[in-house]
Amino acid sequence: MSLILGQIVGALGGTLELAGSDTEIFRIAPLDSAGAGDLSFLSNPRYQQQLAASKAACVIVAPAMREAAMQRGACIVTPDPYVYFARATQLWKRLHERALQSGVHASAVVDPEAVIDPTAYIGPLCVVERGARIGAGTVLKSRVTVGENCIVGARCLLHAGVVLGSDGFGFAPERGTWVKIEQLGAVRIGDDVEIGANTCVDRGALDDTVIENGVKLDNLVQIGHNVHVGQHVAMAGCVGVAGSARIGAHCTVGGGAIVLGHLQLAENVHISAATVVTRSLNKPGVYTGMFPVDENNKWEKNAATLKQLHSLRERIKALEQQQPQGSKIGTQ
Amino acid sequence: MSLILGQIVGALGGTLELAGSDTEIFRIAPLDSAGAGDLSFLSNPRYQQQLAASKAACVIVAPAMREAAMQRGACIVTPDPYVYFARATQLWKRLHERALQSGVHASAVVDPEAVIDPTAYIGPLCVVERGARIGAGTVLKSRVTVGENCIVGARCLLHAGVVLGSDGFGFAPERGTWVKIEQLGAVRIGDDVEIGANTCVDRGALDDTVIENGVKLDNLVQIGHNVHVGQHVAMAGCVGVAGSARIGAHCTVGGGAIVLGHLQLAENVHISAATVVTRSLNKPGVYTGMFPVDENNKWEKNAATLKQLHSLRERIKALEQQQPQGSKIGTQ
Amino acid sequence: MSLILGQIVGALGGTLELAGSDTEIFRIAPLDSAGAGDLSFLSNPRYQQQLAASKAACVIVAPAMREAAMQRGACIVTPDPYVYFARATQLWKRLHERALQSGVHASAVVDPEAVIDPTAYIGPLCVVERGARIGAGTVLKSRVTVGENCIVGARCLLHAGVVLGSDGFGFAPERGTWVKIEQLGAVRIGDDVEIGANTCVDRGALDDTVIENGVKLDNLVQIGHNVHVGQHVAMAGCVGVAGSARIGAHCTVGGGAIVLGHLQLAENVHISAATVVTRSLNKPGVYTGMFPVDENNKWEKNAATLKQLHSLRERIKALEQQQPQGSKIGTQ
Repeated sequence: MSLILGQIVGALGGTLELAGSDTEIFRIAPLDSAGAGDLSFLSNPRYQQQLAASKAACVIVAPAMREAAMQRGACIVTPDPYVYFARATQLWKRLHERALQSGVHASAVVDPEAVIDPTAYIGPLCVVERGARIGAGTVLKSRVTVGENCIVGARCLLHAGVVLGSDGFGFAPERGTWVKIEQLGAVRIGDDVEIGANTCVDRGALDDTVIENGVKLDNLVQIGHNVHVGQHVAMAGCVGVAGSARIGAHCTVGGGAIVLGHLQLAENVHISAATVVTRSLNKPGVYTGMFPVDENNKWEKNAATLKQLHSLRERIKALEQQQPQGSKIGTQ
Repeated sequence: MSLILGQIVGALGGTLELAGSDTEIFRIAPLDSAGAGDLSFLSNPRYQQQLAASKAACVIVAPAMREAAMQRGACIVTPDPYVYFARATQLWKRLHERALQSGVHASAVVDPEAVIDPTAYIGPLCVVERGARIGAGTVLKSRVTVGENCIVGARCLLHAGVVLGSDGFGFAPERGTWVKIEQLGAVRIGDDVEIGANTCVDRGALDDTVIENGVKLDNLVQIGHNVHVGQHVAMAGCVGVAGSARIGAHCTVGGGAIVLGHLQLAENVHISAATVVTRSLNKPGVYTGMFPVDENNKWEKNAATLKQLHSLRERIKALEQQQPQGSKIGTQ
Repeated sequence: MSLILGQIVGALGGTLELAGSDTEIFRIAPLDSAGAGDLSFLSNPRYQQQLAASKAACVIVAPAMREAAMQRGACIVTPDPYVYFARATQLWKRLHERALQSGVHASAVVDPEAVIDPTAYIGPLCVVERGARIGAGTVLKSRVTVGENCIVGARCLLHAGVVLGSDGFGFAPERGTWVKIEQLGAVRIGDDVEIGANTCVDRGALDDTVIENGVKLDNLVQIGHNVHVGQHVAMAGCVGVAGSARIGAHCTVGGGAIVLGHLQLAENVHISAATVVTRSLNKPGVYTGMFPVDENNKWEKNAATLKQLHSLRERIKALEQQQPQGSKIGTQ
């Protein structure tokens, strides 16, 4: 498998420096492990030292790095090297991998009342239930379930094990037992959505659960019933979003974070990994809540003391009140 | 799809006020989004304001809300509106959705030595291994695996991707490697259990892993080997319960919580979301442990200080000891 | 199903005391629930009291426990009773369960360009994509997906729902949308690896994601792209490891823990359950970070105060500075 630099620059633009357009590239590789036949990229100035040392045949760089890159050797200069790199991986895949199929794999189970766009691909051992609709160019890799009446837009990519349209978790308590609330809504997925392996999106109780255009969900994510995920939100692995939460457009949620039910996140809210969101967040910004990791014996002492924190505060207050008049402390 | 109110009251009881029994209902909907042809409900007095403004054709309410509801329009009066609503969703589903099938889908792989009740339904692409038993009226939606010798009771609902009877995580350390402990137990699921998408229940090491009657597990839950989950327990998504834990009847576990191994939870223990249960909890009650979410820069300061918490306590003690005799502080 | 003690000692060694080698064993069971026909074991001296009370036909013990065990009855004496017990479960399974099959189940979907060792077993409804390779004696239980070009070594055990080779979570941001970085690497799994139900391992972006020999992953674990997991690492359920993290050999990771991306864990680092690893850990040891569980009302007070922790520290400092000269406190 190889490409020539001329193919890349021809397709993606940018200025090629210090290399002929017929230079052959055998791989795309990180700066530090790239070899003599590889194309690499520098997107973060932090790694500038790796640039000088890289053995790559050619490095994608920003205009500000042009001089430094040319001292090393060949480069492609482009305003956003990371996006250029992303597009180069797409070009690489398109030219080298087997053309994406369309149609329904013989082993998939598709209800006759489901509607599959002819350009979509339903992979092996998928299940598409009655009334479901799959949009143009969308790919269900393998072992994906799309439940009754659930709708998936165009150009989506659903990885193995995804479940759309399982019942939301709704029960009414009655004398110590649970009465099931049938989940009568469905799931609606917009266009250009990617959903990771074994991720689950529950159907709504009455209205639908909605994932807007351009959303990216990683693996093993749980989206509860009636959640609304705004455009271009990205959630890393193992995130859980409880029922009826509304996540604004362009939010990001770090791995293992939990968003409780019925909360609202404004647009451009960024939740750190493993953070539990217990209240609505109405202002854009970065939010965090996690216990800092420590050596276990130190953690034990601090965690034990944490249980007295409120009373420690009271003791500080009492100490402050005993200070002589002339020495009051301002920071209360 | 529609129903008349007479069908609902006929099947579920309650008193219909200010509407004819032939009033047609086209949907069940939340108070705030219900339209002129919709049935809605008010279960929490907190939402009373929404009641007055609702456009619903009819609202299910408790006797205490009868007057307020009738000032707005038609209502059904019943002691527990939330349970009534749950039953109405069941009625709706029963009347409008395709009758539940029984039998084994042609694409499922069922071992000849498995025993499937004739009224059970084994959906597409499920696997039921040798010696497994599936009870009356139980439904395996699609892509469910029930492992060797595992038993599922009556009227259970297993969503897509569920795995029952994967090996428990048991290894004996030997000179830096792991010797597998074969998991010789199985999984026993009671009656009326619902298990969410991609949830896993491991088989026991020697004895069985047991899920009692009426338990409800949400999606992506992990139940370790030899766990015992008591009757009518409910666990939200992404919960993990480690090996040999015993969860008492009527407990609830919030999303993303972790229960460590070999612990015991009394009946009616309620664990908040994302809480790590590190010790047995012998008294009913609500238990919580999670770092409060905050703006990231504030969190950073507090988390850094948290690592000094134990030494801060020592400093407070020292300050207290330096107070003049006559001003001792009581709250130690 | 039964075995005689002679078969066990013949196969696994150890010294049989106070029982004939033709004593029949009907089950392997824990000390406290073992009956008259059962074999049990004592691996932890903490449970010595259970030894005296056990009704087991025979107990596996260490030399130090020989006397105590013989006062109760029959025993097998061996240097490491837990490993002996593990091997006994393997013997039991081998003799009593249906012989492991090899070959490809008729319902599995295996690409003609995948390479399956003739002694491997590909269970029902598995998917093995083009270019994938499955080693000798490896078992894919059911509904496992092994993606394009992914390699699984010898004697591995992959439980139901495992996904190897889903795309890593890589996107370049561009004007509020996400540009996909095609994931051109694959997954390489060593020998003797066990992977739990519904666990996911993403393919690398450019290089491969690597799981070394002897690694054991529990259920619902997420391994991001380009992660490197060293030999004989064990991870409990619901763990998430973000992209490009390097986990040293012989590490253990407790259930629900999260390891952030690009971090390095030295060999023999042990992470407690539900801990978030936010920095590289270069020294062997036990590391923990979790909020201690408490009664909810106590937690509420302490969590609220936690948000003032940094300012409390400032107040302590101020108090210390106001102490009279002669009484300076040492522990700052």
